[in-house]
Amino acid sequence: MNVQIVEVAPRDGLQNESIILSTEAKVELVERAVRGGARRIEVTSFVNPKRVPQMADADALMAALPRHEGVTYAGLVMTQRGLERALAAGVDEINAVVVATDTFCGRNQGMTTAEACDIAASLVESARAAGVWSTITIGASFGCPFEGEVPVERFTEVLLRVVDAGPDELALADTIGVAVPSDITTRLALAREIAGPDLPLRVHLHDTRHTGVANAAAAVQAGVTTLDASIGGAGGCPFAPAATGNVATEDLVYLLERTGLPTGIALSTTIETAGWLEEQLEKKLPSALLRAGGFPA
Amino acid sequence: MNVQIVEVAPRDGLQNESIILSTEAKVELVERAVRGGARRIEVTSFVNPKRVPQMADADALMAALPRHEGVTYAGLVMTQRGLERALAAGVDEINAVVVATDTFCGRNQGMTTAEACDIAASLVESARAAGVWSTITIGASFGCPFEGEVPVERFTEVLLRVVDAGPDELALADTIGVAVPSDITTRLALAREIAGPDLPLRVHLHDTRHTGVANAAAAVQAGVTTLDASIGGAGGCPFAPAATGNVATEDLVYLLERTGLPTGIALSTTIETAGWLEEQLEKKLPSALLRAGGFPA
Repeated sequence: MNVQIVEVAPRDGLQNESIILSTEAKVELVERAVRGGARRIEVTSFVNPKRVPQMADADALMAALPRHEGVTYAGLVMTQRGLERALAAGVDEINAVVVATDTFCGRNQGMTTAEACDIAASLVESARAAGVWSTITIGASFGCPFEGEVPVERFTEVLLRVVDAGPDELALADTIGVAVPSDITTRLALAREIAGPDLPLRVHLHDTRHTGVANAAAAVQAGVTTLDASIGGAGGCPFAPAATGNVATEDLVYLLERTGLPTGIALSTTIETAGWLEEQLEKKLPSALLRAGGFPA
Repeated sequence: MNVQIVEVAPRDGLQNESIILSTEAKVELVERAVRGGARRIEVTSFVNPKRVPQMADADALMAALPRHEGVTYAGLVMTQRGLERALAAGVDEINAVVVATDTFCGRNQGMTTAEACDIAASLVESARAAGVWSTITIGASFGCPFEGEVPVERFTEVLLRVVDAGPDELALADTIGVAVPSDITTRLALAREIAGPDLPLRVHLHDTRHTGVANAAAAVQAGVTTLDASIGGAGGCPFAPAATGNVATEDLVYLLERTGLPTGIALSTTIETAGWLEEQLEKKLPSALLRAGGFPA
């Protein structure tokens, strides 16, 4: 079984950083990811630059990115305006977001969960009409920084609406890194039940409470073979308190490859890129493999 | 099912630190652990103070530690001399160590694995004669910083000798934090097969490559309910390169309690102690929960 890692460092990895990388540096980040073996990369988000200044160059970045055979670029969108920009910029896929709780959804995108579901449905429809692949990500699938527990009834309701919106893929995000493996198992089983056997599932994990790698292992055990990760473990949500790093690509690659699951991602190249990214961001990133290196030879 | 966490911060947590804590500070650390709910604590090691200066006050520490009903103190020993000190100091249990590879065993305790097995057997015998409980820990059970892979044949050989030594408990240590969950599952199954159904098993995990929490989950899933952890994630082996922190007690408590497995350890007290320990050691510890806090209320 192969596992596909969706590289999200250029988007989720950077969006909460105070140092704004130049478009050139972002191109280099994406090019380094491609050299490391990434084949699916979330490169930016087409959102209000006043809300997320790091993503102000979304259109320019897409225009500047070299294209490589077999490599797809995704853009996160939250509105029709964002979708139009993303399509004009030539993204291969869009990622629409619905946050599972009203409070967090309001902070994240200025609307209720129900409203976000409606918009996501129309984004999926527009993307499909343009021949562009779509994912809907359910943010805070395992817990909310403002409301705490996301009851299973609530989560079920959101799942039903999101599946009804008809995306090409459904992603469950542990936006604030609160899930434990049993949560992953339970909620993925529910998602599979509601989505049916054919809709691809993906998980987006944060390592905020050091459960990210354990959750990834649980997701793979549950049959999910598409996982987001961010080089260096960079990342966090600007609209949630103490929501720190995504699970690091290199940490996930170590786990998966040592488990006998090929990812197509080169560990040494990824570690090197994580080191480079630390220099760009002038901060220590939470990656473990960057400090420890791979399995001793 | 309850899970027992053996608190190892006073021993493995401190042994590699350059700042030598006073005996008073160590007493406070142990007392704080007890207040947090720890019932089994590895408080020190009775080794050569020239090799591990932090442990030079082992005898004095034991003399200074208040005793609490239901709380046991363990001491790590590697020699008969160490055992005599430990018994004189009044430890409740001893922990003898055998490293699975000759190179690492030589660096760690100046002998081959076979020699360490012989010594461990005699330590167990002497401890039993004195009415003191004994564990043998197999260091580098999942990989060696010098030899790399520890082949299953080699590991089996060591297991056979260690089980033959007759300890009251067998611990598998991932001393340099290289294991992935499938390693834990496989080697615990082998240990169980060789040890038979009645010998208690325990695991000692490091989070060097962010697999510690995932490995703990795998161990619990395999039926092992005794796990070492260190407040703050402090720790490391002075005789292995880049062997960093133990899995943090508070990270493990978060995982286990959210999974519905009671540990008897209070998360908030433990996080507070981790913060206190950072002040004592004048460094940032790798704990995730110390930064992120528990599940949002």
